[in-house]
Amino acid sequence: MKLPVSTEWLLHCAASLAQLDAGATASAAQLAAYYDLPAAYLAKQLQSLVRAGVLTATTGPRGGFRLGRPASEITLLQIVEAVDGGSSPYECREIRQQGRGALPAAQCREPCILAAKMAEAHEAWRRTLAATSLADIIATLPASTPRRTRARLTGRP
Amino acid sequence: MKLPVSTEWLLHCAASLAQLDAGATASAAQLAAYYDLPAAYLAKQLQSLVRAGVLTATTGPRGGFRLGRPASEITLLQIVEAVDGGSSPYECREIRQQGRGALPAAQCREPCILAAKMAEAHEAWRRTLAATSLADIIATLPASTPRRTRARLTGRP
Repeated sequence: MKLPVSTEWLLHCAASLAQLDAGATASAAQLAAYYDLPAAYLAKQLQSLVRAGVLTATTGPRGGFRLGRPASEITLLQIVEAVDGGSSPYECREIRQQGRGALPAAQCREPCILAAKMAEAHEAWRRTLAATSLADIIATLPASTPRRTRARLTGRP
Repeated sequence: MKLPVSTEWLLHCAASLAQLDAGATASAAQLAAYYDLPAAYLAKQLQSLVRAGVLTATTGPRGGFRLGRPASEITLLQIVEAVDGGSSPYECREIRQQGRGALPAAQCREPCILAAKMAEAHEAWRRTLAATSLADIIATLPASTPRRTRARLTGRP
């Protein structure tokens, strides 16, 4: 199971945007240059964060992207699921109900115990990512980092 | 991110083999008929469980597959990782070290905090699956199930 390569891009882009001053924005081209990523494809991926409400896109000469809500209210899970969707990596096709061993429908009203355990593991994964916000991430950075990020990302300190 | 469809097949096959009497085996064809799965492809997938030591393959007229160790020592994680490998779904390509924002190597001796959080989530997923053995799964089944499984899988009660 693999997350899209753009998962890393969007986690980093969102963390960088979380270091801008309130109201400031960065364009897709600026973010692409900052991380040396393909600009057109990155721009498309950033839209998935806009649709999820993680980012807001503004238009006009100074338009670009900024956080859609406070960094403390954006979790890593919201970013990852904006990129990849929220479905479990395990797919239960109910093979317990097919073939020579098929169980009667009456015995299949509860989810299969194997599917339930796989769902439990996915929930543990989700809980871990939901427990960390962008504000938590920024709080771990050296104190000098946000100023450097702003300067290199937008050209404005 | 998606696990292979055969993940469900192999979890169920291993759980069924865990219900056989000691020393009894079931062939790939029997397992395929039991769950109505494509026999040749299933046989290939079962080999991944043999390579992982989860199953043992025996040859000869009554040959087939049986558990490679006691059901209490086979975890769901071992089965899932035999199918899909053990790597994390998140790939860190160190984009923090590229582009205009590239961090100096000296600041990148520690893993990126975002990669570390993604790894933590993967470990939470792994821990959940490692905490459940095939014996735990069998213990949840109705008391009449193993006899039915044996009869329908191998034709021997």
